[in-house]
Amino acid sequence: MNLRQLAELLGLSQTTVSRALNGYPEVNRATRERVLKAAEETGYRPNAAAQRLATGRAGSIGLVMPAAPDYYADIHFAEFLSGLGEEAARRDFHFVLMPKKPGEEEDALRWLVASGSVDGIYLAYMQANDPRITLMQSLRIPYLVHGRSIGIEGDYPYLDVDNEAAFRDATNLLLELGHRRIGLLNGPGGVDFTIRRKAGVEAALAAKGLALEADQTRHTAMTDEFGFRGMKELLEQPSPPTAVLCASTVLALGAIRAVNQAGLRLGRDISLIAHDDVLPLLKPEDFSVPLTTTRSSLRAAGVRIGQRLIDRIKGLETGPEQELWKAELIVRNSTGAAPR
Amino acid sequence: MNLRQLAELLGLSQTTVSRALNGYPEVNRATRERVLKAAEETGYRPNAAAQRLATGRAGSIGLVMPAAPDYYADIHFAEFLSGLGEEAARRDFHFVLMPKKPGEEEDALRWLVASGSVDGIYLAYMQANDPRITLMQSLRIPYLVHGRSIGIEGDYPYLDVDNEAAFRDATNLLLELGHRRIGLLNGPGGVDFTIRRKAGVEAALAAKGLALEADQTRHTAMTDEFGFRGMKELLEQPSPPTAVLCASTVLALGAIRAVNQAGLRLGRDISLIAHDDVLPLLKPEDFSVPLTTTRSSLRAAGVRIGQRLIDRIKGLETGPEQELWKAELIVRNSTGAAPR
Repeated sequence: MNLRQLAELLGLSQTTVSRALNGYPEVNRATRERVLKAAEETGYRPNAAAQRLATGRAGSIGLVMPAAPDYYADIHFAEFLSGLGEEAARRDFHFVLMPKKPGEEEDALRWLVASGSVDGIYLAYMQANDPRITLMQSLRIPYLVHGRSIGIEGDYPYLDVDNEAAFRDATNLLLELGHRRIGLLNGPGGVDFTIRRKAGVEAALAAKGLALEADQTRHTAMTDEFGFRGMKELLEQPSPPTAVLCASTVLALGAIRAVNQAGLRLGRDISLIAHDDVLPLLKPEDFSVPLTTTRSSLRAAGVRIGQRLIDRIKGLETGPEQELWKAELIVRNSTGAAPR
Repeated sequence: MNLRQLAELLGLSQTTVSRALNGYPEVNRATRERVLKAAEETGYRPNAAAQRLATGRAGSIGLVMPAAPDYYADIHFAEFLSGLGEEAARRDFHFVLMPKKPGEEEDALRWLVASGSVDGIYLAYMQANDPRITLMQSLRIPYLVHGRSIGIEGDYPYLDVDNEAAFRDATNLLLELGHRRIGLLNGPGGVDFTIRRKAGVEAALAAKGLALEADQTRHTAMTDEFGFRGMKELLEQPSPPTAVLCASTVLALGAIRAVNQAGLRLGRDISLIAHDDVLPLLKPEDFSVPLTTTRSSLRAAGVRIGQRLIDRIKGLETGPEQELWKAELIVRNSTGAAPR
């Protein structure tokens, strides 16, 4: 049973049947229900590519999701996806999501494009010198980068938060409070945003003739467990930091457990600033000692990337539009004057 | 450029080209790279359906993701998806994910099947008398239900946790500790697992001639915010409960904030048991007062559902296999004898 046969069976045009199957508002409800019923009864399953040609819309965004037995569910990814999903639902797009072991992303992208099942690609978890940008530039399909990639020359479309400025501002606040030994619990090494955040800390320290010590820095996955371990290690050093920056409120959650276990008072004995992706589950104002944060909503980024990527697919956005969001520095009680 | 033309250009068989594009190990690395390079240079994008016929595998699971501006990112969904993704990556499957406003799931399922882009369907967020099961029974495509649906007769394949037994056991523990006024912070009303959990509480209470009071029960989304509000309301009643069951550690996080704000000591003035989906971010043993829980890993359920659904797609599982997991009751410090 193909589209033509189904249309003949129903005494309708192929266009009408195709639109009914795809929920176009031009088709009235009674006709739509008749078509859907017939499609169900005949077991009709149209060829995806043919359907796309008939209706002029595929409505599909391709993305790669990190997946492996040792890979934690990433609440940051879930939060972003909820924003992207909100916009996709509004504009009747769906996702083709490839779960792949980290390191196999390029093959997954090639497959997504080669399969013909997506109209545009969302790129994330960007590394320095990320080969995926060069790959996407060589493929003929719209794409949008969440983040950037240090070392990649040339124009490419992206949306990023100004991570360097965010962490420079946060470090300047700590310097103004008199802190001199400052630690950094950062995200994974080699990832673009962690490189930029570190650069922001270093820039602020350098302006005061200070440096970020290697033994005061940790690069880990952004989980509660690594936050706990990282902070514990920093506190066990001979000269522990008096203030620590965390790349996520998730890291901060574990880090504060280590602070409490060490019998230190947050905001008095030790100061802490976390980057807040506005995860509904971890509101910085709800921590026992409300957290000072650099704030930028990951969900809002998801919505915005959905808008722009769909616009690119529809030809409404062209050219390498580059959008850089500024994080807000919000001072609460987890920061205080350096202990004497 | 179609598959035949690409094969001719390369002097290879269509089967070899198709397998190379799909990463089959039978094709050596040099050939594979030559094919991928040519596919890129020519902008070749095969018809998805044709490719499926050529390679004998589509490798696609369809699922619907709740999405709306007022819909929170669901950490439970992310955790499940990470398990499903782990198994899908292992067996070279991908997802077609439809973001849809709650209430539009049936149309999304019809579209997924009609599009020809998926080989099987995963159903979740089951309601009582859920019309989606009847719909899936009428469509000719493998599917698997995560959870069950009270009120639906007949056989259908599912994996569920024995939610009634879990909450009956938990309530019995509280009764043994002398608690008589027991509250319940449950998930959303009308959802199958919340109905069964409530039934478990009621069964245990009824065996002692007690009842679950309507004013001691809350049905809400399983967020930290609702846990806080729900517990606050219970504690402000004239006769507040001495013990509360929470449908998630996420609800418990907020509920405990309300307990602390009220100046009550957890495990002494008030007892609490939470259902633990084994979310890495919220380990019950890491709470200041470690939580007593009913435990069943949502990620393990994701892996298992991935195995079974892919087996069903491949014809390796037939018949309405029904699998019911038992949750473990783990006693920690958040439960204690009822205050006199």
